[in-house]
Amino acid sequence: MSTDVQGPVAVLGAGTIGAAWAAFFALAGLEVRVADPAPDAQARIDAMLERARPAMQALGTLSDRPTVPQLHRDIGTAVAGVAAIQEALPEQLPLKQQAYRAVEAAAPADALLMSSSSGLMPTLLQQGLAQPERLLIAHPCNPAYLMPLVELVGGQATSAAVLDRAEAFYRVLGKQTVRLQREATGHLVNRLQAALWREAVHLVAEGHASVADVDRAVTEGLGARWTVCGPHAIFHLSGGAEGMAGFLQRLGPAVESWWADLGQPRLDAATRERLVAQMQQASAGRSPEAMARERDAHMLRVMGLVRPDGAG
Amino acid sequence: MSTDVQGPVAVLGAGTIGAAWAAFFALAGLEVRVADPAPDAQARIDAMLERARPAMQALGTLSDRPTVPQLHRDIGTAVAGVAAIQEALPEQLPLKQQAYRAVEAAAPADALLMSSSSGLMPTLLQQGLAQPERLLIAHPCNPAYLMPLVELVGGQATSAAVLDRAEAFYRVLGKQTVRLQREATGHLVNRLQAALWREAVHLVAEGHASVADVDRAVTEGLGARWTVCGPHAIFHLSGGAEGMAGFLQRLGPAVESWWADLGQPRLDAATRERLVAQMQQASAGRSPEAMARERDAHMLRVMGLVRPDGAG
Repeated sequence: MSTDVQGPVAVLGAGTIGAAWAAFFALAGLEVRVADPAPDAQARIDAMLERARPAMQALGTLSDRPTVPQLHRDIGTAVAGVAAIQEALPEQLPLKQQAYRAVEAAAPADALLMSSSSGLMPTLLQQGLAQPERLLIAHPCNPAYLMPLVELVGGQATSAAVLDRAEAFYRVLGKQTVRLQREATGHLVNRLQAALWREAVHLVAEGHASVADVDRAVTEGLGARWTVCGPHAIFHLSGGAEGMAGFLQRLGPAVESWWADLGQPRLDAATRERLVAQMQQASAGRSPEAMARERDAHMLRVMGLVRPDGAG
Repeated sequence: MSTDVQGPVAVLGAGTIGAAWAAFFALAGLEVRVADPAPDAQARIDAMLERARPAMQALGTLSDRPTVPQLHRDIGTAVAGVAAIQEALPEQLPLKQQAYRAVEAAAPADALLMSSSSGLMPTLLQQGLAQPERLLIAHPCNPAYLMPLVELVGGQATSAAVLDRAEAFYRVLGKQTVRLQREATGHLVNRLQAALWREAVHLVAEGHASVADVDRAVTEGLGARWTVCGPHAIFHLSGGAEGMAGFLQRLGPAVESWWADLGQPRLDAATRERLVAQMQQASAGRSPEAMARERDAHMLRVMGLVRPDGAG
């Protein structure tokens, strides 16, 4: 993997997202500086490196010249001379804007400024910047060292050249990028996930099925197909030789009638109680932490299979 | 795999779903009779057997004593002496009701009567039956010889004992079953799929992203995780030590605000045109048939990994 065109990267914030980014960049071979004044920042980075190394080794994304992230207390020293800044601060606008002012005061004028925000729109984030054109959202899937997808979203002031540079930056590192043509709260992944979960909650809240059975409908009925085909491709392939046109012709009205029947649940007290109790039951005594370890081990195997450059 | 408790099975209809069921049952070692008067029924069954055999071999579900389905023109001769009937006729109520009358006239009184319907409710299907208590919906994921999940749905008149027997019937054959506690149009899988696709269509129709990029958000950002964790478990695992309760506490309001922002697209002429054109582009010159072959080969590898009794 050639990384010699990639300069040093600064990561702002060593929370769950920031530490995962720092581990990913360092283990992919980039020089990394992390800005976080919290006393436990170093411990969190170290823990994340330990989790990320075997995962990236298994996936083949571990560099043969990995680096070690350098921790800085201040943004100013962290961003001096970097080629790119990955901001991963809490989802609070004033906090992010204050950080951007520190970036603008100390980073090279042509450094990419990429926010990991899942909830704030890039047009909002770039308000008040001296160089709003270099800001974009680059939203990872969690954990960033494992999941290949990065969603790139420009705001009204983002330049097309900056989006191109950001896309090239991540792709050299082995990431897959999708680019939104127009910003939307939650981008693509979180919106699609929220849409599916809304119906899942409806089915549980209305007593159609248990949390465990709804989850199994996804893991055993839908998940494998969705590693291979997206939602449009699935229907394209069920439309015969005419593809999507054939599907819409024959089944469009049925789909619209299903859409009309989907639920619009609220997360009220009764629904929350039901979700918590049934999730407890579905966990069958396993802690969330134990389940997360099972998930990670299993996902690594699946990811190894479905990587676009893997066994295809 | 022990199948000696399983009597002969009749499959009504040799369309895509019925032929896949027939191939599955026969290759799992059951005696199978298919009722279909169409002149090309035998050819369709033969073609399905050819597709199903290598898939079931790869998954380890191929019996060492596979059978060959016998084709019957009439339902009466097909269902005589069977232990179970898998109805897979077109989604037309009068057609199914007529078939059920033929079943009631000729099948053993204790034979299970299972409809593959995805769109009709079991309470509706059992109206007018002499023995409505033995009818349930057993809805497969397509293709039935490959996908493990079967959704079991009873109607108002279905007996609990019949649901238990149906569950045991499929589980002996290596299927995974989920049981709805209350019927719903589209059951679980199709409703969840429809919910996700509705938001996918919204994102494309409103110009936020292309068909190709929305599909990649699913295949590269969500699919692998959904082979391991269902939608509830994902949030349970992101809630820290408190699990779902912690997630709802911290992120419930954000999720509700995302739900409020999800789209409600229509499949109008402009949207259909956009979907067809962009799907054409995303196909990059591959025919739906070639894409379906790629999908099947790839899914077999993923399914082999994620089977509950596989590498776990």
